[in-house]
Amino acid sequence: MTKRIIMDADTGIDDTLALAYLLAQPKVELLGVVGVYGNVHARVAHTNNRMVLEAFGRADIPTAMGCTAPSWAQEFAVDEGCARFHGDNGFGGVSPVDYVSGLPKSSSNVAAQSRDVNTVGLPNSLGNSAIGSVGGTRTELRDMPADAVRATCGRGVHMIIDAVRQYGEEVTVLATGPLTDVDAAIRIAPDIAQHLQLVMMGGALTQQGNCYDLICETNIIQDPEAADRVFHSGAHITMIGLDVTHQCLLTRRDIAAWEDTGVPVGRFLADMTKFYISANESSDEIFAAGSPLHDPLAAAVAVDASLVGCFDINMMVETQTGDGFGFRGRTIGDRTMLVGHSCRTHVALSVDAQRFHDDFVDSVTRLCQEQTQ
Amino acid sequence: MTKRIIMDADTGIDDTLALAYLLAQPKVELLGVVGVYGNVHARVAHTNNRMVLEAFGRADIPTAMGCTAPSWAQEFAVDEGCARFHGDNGFGGVSPVDYVSGLPKSSSNVAAQSRDVNTVGLPNSLGNSAIGSVGGTRTELRDMPADAVRATCGRGVHMIIDAVRQYGEEVTVLATGPLTDVDAAIRIAPDIAQHLQLVMMGGALTQQGNCYDLICETNIIQDPEAADRVFHSGAHITMIGLDVTHQCLLTRRDIAAWEDTGVPVGRFLADMTKFYISANESSDEIFAAGSPLHDPLAAAVAVDASLVGCFDINMMVETQTGDGFGFRGRTIGDRTMLVGHSCRTHVALSVDAQRFHDDFVDSVTRLCQEQTQ
Repeated sequence: MTKRIIMDADTGIDDTLALAYLLAQPKVELLGVVGVYGNVHARVAHTNNRMVLEAFGRADIPTAMGCTAPSWAQEFAVDEGCARFHGDNGFGGVSPVDYVSGLPKSSSNVAAQSRDVNTVGLPNSLGNSAIGSVGGTRTELRDMPADAVRATCGRGVHMIIDAVRQYGEEVTVLATGPLTDVDAAIRIAPDIAQHLQLVMMGGALTQQGNCYDLICETNIIQDPEAADRVFHSGAHITMIGLDVTHQCLLTRRDIAAWEDTGVPVGRFLADMTKFYISANESSDEIFAAGSPLHDPLAAAVAVDASLVGCFDINMMVETQTGDGFGFRGRTIGDRTMLVGHSCRTHVALSVDAQRFHDDFVDSVTRLCQEQTQ
Repeated sequence: MTKRIIMDADTGIDDTLALAYLLAQPKVELLGVVGVYGNVHARVAHTNNRMVLEAFGRADIPTAMGCTAPSWAQEFAVDEGCARFHGDNGFGGVSPVDYVSGLPKSSSNVAAQSRDVNTVGLPNSLGNSAIGSVGGTRTELRDMPADAVRATCGRGVHMIIDAVRQYGEEVTVLATGPLTDVDAAIRIAPDIAQHLQLVMMGGALTQQGNCYDLICETNIIQDPEAADRVFHSGAHITMIGLDVTHQCLLTRRDIAAWEDTGVPVGRFLADMTKFYISANESSDEIFAAGSPLHDPLAAAVAVDASLVGCFDINMMVETQTGDGFGFRGRTIGDRTMLVGHSCRTHVALSVDAQRFHDDFVDSVTRLCQEQTQ
């Protein structure tokens, strides 16, 4: 059976790998890819999504830009830590246009490309939203009424709304960045919440975070308010956090398989991923064994939920630090919903790491090989 | 089959209820009860243990005093929060001597009673330790060599050591207070670690803590270093944290059953527990539904592990706060042991709350009724 997925990504090296993984799955119908701020600016994420799709010959897949800043802020600046893991351009300093012939050179020019946001087509089935200001996003979404949120959100948010309205439980929203877009979609269109099937990469429940404080996880800390609202929205959520992604490690040996295909895009993926592996190695000694496959694991779970074992719990995100509040950005169980509430969030705590790892490496290798034809 | 248990408690209202629960179990052999600082001073905990045992006609069970202060401190003062939940005397301001006739009046005099520590008999099988300074405990255990730890620890620590040396995996150490005694036992006698079966009430993995910061749990924050060492000792640990104890709630209606027995000790337990319920109700609205049965649940799991569903993980306790450290007192997975290490800690995440609740209330009711004979 075909699995419909719409992806929301702050692309990002491991987002790129997740996207490649999805493109390699014969039974996945990728309805669209939304670029959100996070590892990079939203315009960069959006441009990167288009470049990756074009590099793999899948320019037919619709893309759009989501929110350009967290719901609690007017502006967004890329965190130093994110730049260290993903490079300024989200590809670790390399670019598909330097490997793959035939890609528009302008793809490497983020500023130029970002002006093209509005020209990216939605398929008819997803293009029905009345969109106020398309593309450019002036965000200060916190406490805004739904009408105001609607007016400030990018086309990507409407892609998510339309996909869920059209397919309901038959489409999975895969979020590999901050949850700002998903939150905005639910606030604009509350009717989608009960149908929304969300697989999200983010958070950490039983393991330390990957921010400097060792408490917060990178995607969640970008927009704790949005994540907390999504957790309480009634959506059906599978949380792929550090609990499991830190068990799924990619090594230099693995990516040699992509390089060995001799295919330009394979060399691109390998070179890009070397940057990520080096950054991980220098960040924490636990990554000497390999670099965590955060977003690819979330993508794989969106395709095959049996990869992980989940603990059902009603989650929250603490939005303030201090006595009586916890720690801003921490993902934890909501004590007010521990007893007498059904659980709509499934937190992955165990993973068949070997099966996922081998499938992931093989899938991307196969996808690269197919590019020679 | 008889279940051998040695209990280490900072008694405490819910410790008292846990002790009563164990006394009600026909198939439990309670080898001894150690009183440690925590909810109250160690001397108070020890005195309380003796009073409870005498009140239930079980003066035959050996008791001893454990450590009087955390491993990181010279002295110990009762936390305002602990006093609020347990009262200055650990019984919520009431005392068994005011209910149960025939109890030595001196039992209510903590200072006098505490001088009797050395006279409390160990059974022959547990009395073989060469004990330096018995009873009185001058503690600054952190970084002390084992010899120094040995010289400063109370007799209770040696009761634990001797029990594990004699019975190995056939005895369960039930810790309902800080882990200072268990840590001291392992440091004095490292040979016991691999055999030690520990059921501990403490910590929180998937839920917020119950300290003001909402991150730490009360027992762990008393001695994070000791708890961290115990987690890394190789002992076989079942952690009964707030994840499950906050699902097991006791109501005023429940304790009416104890009062309704008409037995003095039943009235004592009910009056004592009213204090605890009132304190919980005024601390957090989630306890309007009932007060958490922290220590009783741990006691019940020591008897019947099938009450809880556990997640196996190698745990740590963060001992410093700040970037690169986490938050002092937080219980969380040890990221350096996530991959490639077997797990010796089982964290309870689900509980058959109804089965436990009913068994607990009925057991204590039955125990009270038996006191009329």
